[in-house]
Amino acid sequence: MIQNMSVNQITLHIIKTLKENKKAEFETIIDELQPYDIAQIYETLPDKHRTRFLLFLNTDLLANLLEEINKEEQLDILNKLGVEKTGKVLDLMDNDDLASLLNELSPETTEQLLSGMKKEESIIVQNLMNYPDETAGRMMTNRFVWIRDYYTTREAVDKLKSFADFAETLSYLYVINQKRQLVGVVSYRDLLIAEPQDKIMDIMYERVISVSVTEDQEQVAHIIQKYDFLAIPVVDEENMLMGIITVDDIIDVVIQEADEDIQKLSAGGKDIDFDTKAHIAAYRRLPWLILLLFIGIVSGSIISSYEDILSKAVALSFFMPMISGMTGNTGTQSLAVIVRGLISNTINKRIVTKVIFRELLVGLIIGATCGIIITLIAYVWQGSPVLGFVVGCSLFFTLIIGTLSGTIIPLILYRFKIDPAVASGPLITTLNDIFSLFIYFGIASAFLKHLM
Amino acid sequence: MIQNMSVNQITLHIIKTLKENKKAEFETIIDELQPYDIAQIYETLPDKHRTRFLLFLNTDLLANLLEEINKEEQLDILNKLGVEKTGKVLDLMDNDDLASLLNELSPETTEQLLSGMKKEESIIVQNLMNYPDETAGRMMTNRFVWIRDYYTTREAVDKLKSFADFAETLSYLYVINQKRQLVGVVSYRDLLIAEPQDKIMDIMYERVISVSVTEDQEQVAHIIQKYDFLAIPVVDEENMLMGIITVDDIIDVVIQEADEDIQKLSAGGKDIDFDTKAHIAAYRRLPWLILLLFIGIVSGSIISSYEDILSKAVALSFFMPMISGMTGNTGTQSLAVIVRGLISNTINKRIVTKVIFRELLVGLIIGATCGIIITLIAYVWQGSPVLGFVVGCSLFFTLIIGTLSGTIIPLILYRFKIDPAVASGPLITTLNDIFSLFIYFGIASAFLKHLM
Repeated sequence: MIQNMSVNQITLHIIKTLKENKKAEFETIIDELQPYDIAQIYETLPDKHRTRFLLFLNTDLLANLLEEINKEEQLDILNKLGVEKTGKVLDLMDNDDLASLLNELSPETTEQLLSGMKKEESIIVQNLMNYPDETAGRMMTNRFVWIRDYYTTREAVDKLKSFADFAETLSYLYVINQKRQLVGVVSYRDLLIAEPQDKIMDIMYERVISVSVTEDQEQVAHIIQKYDFLAIPVVDEENMLMGIITVDDIIDVVIQEADEDIQKLSAGGKDIDFDTKAHIAAYRRLPWLILLLFIGIVSGSIISSYEDILSKAVALSFFMPMISGMTGNTGTQSLAVIVRGLISNTINKRIVTKVIFRELLVGLIIGATCGIIITLIAYVWQGSPVLGFVVGCSLFFTLIIGTLSGTIIPLILYRFKIDPAVASGPLITTLNDIFSLFIYFGIASAFLKHLM
Repeated sequence: MIQNMSVNQITLHIIKTLKENKKAEFETIIDELQPYDIAQIYETLPDKHRTRFLLFLNTDLLANLLEEINKEEQLDILNKLGVEKTGKVLDLMDNDDLASLLNELSPETTEQLLSGMKKEESIIVQNLMNYPDETAGRMMTNRFVWIRDYYTTREAVDKLKSFADFAETLSYLYVINQKRQLVGVVSYRDLLIAEPQDKIMDIMYERVISVSVTEDQEQVAHIIQKYDFLAIPVVDEENMLMGIITVDDIIDVVIQEADEDIQKLSAGGKDIDFDTKAHIAAYRRLPWLILLLFIGIVSGSIISSYEDILSKAVALSFFMPMISGMTGNTGTQSLAVIVRGLISNTINKRIVTKVIFRELLVGLIIGATCGIIITLIAYVWQGSPVLGFVVGCSLFFTLIIGTLSGTIIPLILYRFKIDPAVASGPLITTLNDIFSLFIYFGIASAFLKHLM
């Protein structure tokens, strides 16, 4: 009935069933919807209908709803549910989603919520929360299917059936030995092709690609992307199988990491989105801006130390913002290439040398081209061939230096395990500003008597 | 045997089997490896071993290898394989991967490669290549499992088994009617839970989330991310099922789109990575730099029109780069928030108003804070309260304008269906430069007699 309706039409329909208290009809509609749609509908629902909406959902759907909704709404829903139902719903939530919800709450609220849950479920979540943020251990779920290597294919399929409702992915079955160590993997595809009496140990892959609990989430994403996996197992230092990470969480990681790179490169604050409050957004952005302000003062004091030259040849000041702007820009261009390249390349000495040499060449080409153009323009505009030469020559050198600093600085930071994106945006701008002013006024001083 | 070896050790082992011409042993090793590993090993293999390596692989593995390897190596392998084997291998390749390989080749080479393939396979690939780049139609694969609604669960499972080797994903079975229109979807999970005699029409979801062949790949990624799907069906305007897109391709799209955003925001050239040749990288970056050069000339001419003020109060030039730098930076910060926000938010009037108002507030807070700081610094440094006031006041206004232009311009571009990232990086820098100079010298002119 609802298959061709838009989400808005369905919402109206649902409001009708809520008003008329028709639970059966409500359930028929909800049954056809994806968790994401249910969350969308709940968010647009007027407040007065929300309580009954939650009352009509069973605990499974409530858990799904909580997984899809933002933090504030999650807490609001938990308050509306009451203590007893909250415990049941939290038991059913994916433990990685639950851990990230609890992470935002005060220790008291966390304590209180955990105490309403089944003991074994609450222990699992607490264990998860012990791993640092953005590691594999923190993201993994324990809702996977494990089997033993002496199972037959038929036994494995039976286990898969009994786990169908519970598991986050049915694509892979992980094979463990008696110590719970990961010794193999069988895909659902392999099971389909195998005969019922085949032994798992004969059809399983023994070379299992896995990640450690302490692995950084970006690295996990990189591995899943390379191998095109739907999930990857997570093991501890003794190769014990601790959980799995599924591809849907990895897409979120990839987007989050790209957002972070962009925010860092634009010297913006972390975690600013459309919902962030103004004072929080301002507070997160200000540190970089104040830093840049002081860098501006440093540039200013360099300029002031050349006050004498400037007052003798005011025309020099016309080209000052252009030179520092261009140097900054070419540096950012190189930086962007390096930061994203570091994500998808395995770095070794050969590649580093190659890239630095490549960027040096790029700097030479760009520097020569822009240098010649500006020489001609400055000459025609100001009628002084010497000024043209000073400006063009300066731009040539500053562009080469800009390109190289945008290449070498992030590589050095990477080498010392500092995220190149965070430090090098403002760092490169500063250094390039200072370099460019020194070069410009240095060359200008040398030709001063011809400039006047 | 090889499960605990590194890829390097395995490579040495493989070279040994190649040297000794031991095909059976070679196959035992390869059998345990992922396609990505096989490609990695092939790429590090010395040239003299490559021909036998290719000879030892069966056509299935050759197709896998081609899917994982870069364009240059793909062509080299095809040359090494010879005409007849090439046809067979191309038949087995995923048609989306094949389409993107052929896309890079000359029409003659494409023609030649297609003529070696099975007729039906080559027609499918050619159809795919008719869709524009970066659309759903271009990315989809026809290797999926479709069933009819009158099937029983048992029949569906049988079909799934017969497709196990061929299909790119076994997670969903798509249900079509006699006109090949998409009418439902059944997940493998549903099949596991259902009874063998259950009819598909009774267990299928009728509200299928699908995308149109013409849908932009970024939008497809957005839908898959929201719904946490492993694949999504692609339909034409009559709702006929044309293909599916799988989540592994979507991860690549997300990374590619993030790279593009970063390159655009940093005014860098498209498609520059570690392997791009220097002259090509320079050629791709130069257009923006030359544009920025001319923008610099515009700024320069604005400054030159205030030459008189400048020569009377040289100290004004000390703060010039700081003011334009800060304005540019705050604009880029806002821009980054908007560009990434547009990806994950559904845009409507309410949200746009909210975000603009938020950024205005942010601009006020940032402007006031930085304005006060620089007033004090300029006063202490140059000993002139009027200069402090002029600089602080200018910074206050330029930061507000910078924030607003970084917010409003990308939103306007988005409204007119222009990608906000591409046009607004340099555009915002330009406009902010010009605004900031006018405001700075405007305020300075008003207070000129107090400045001297």
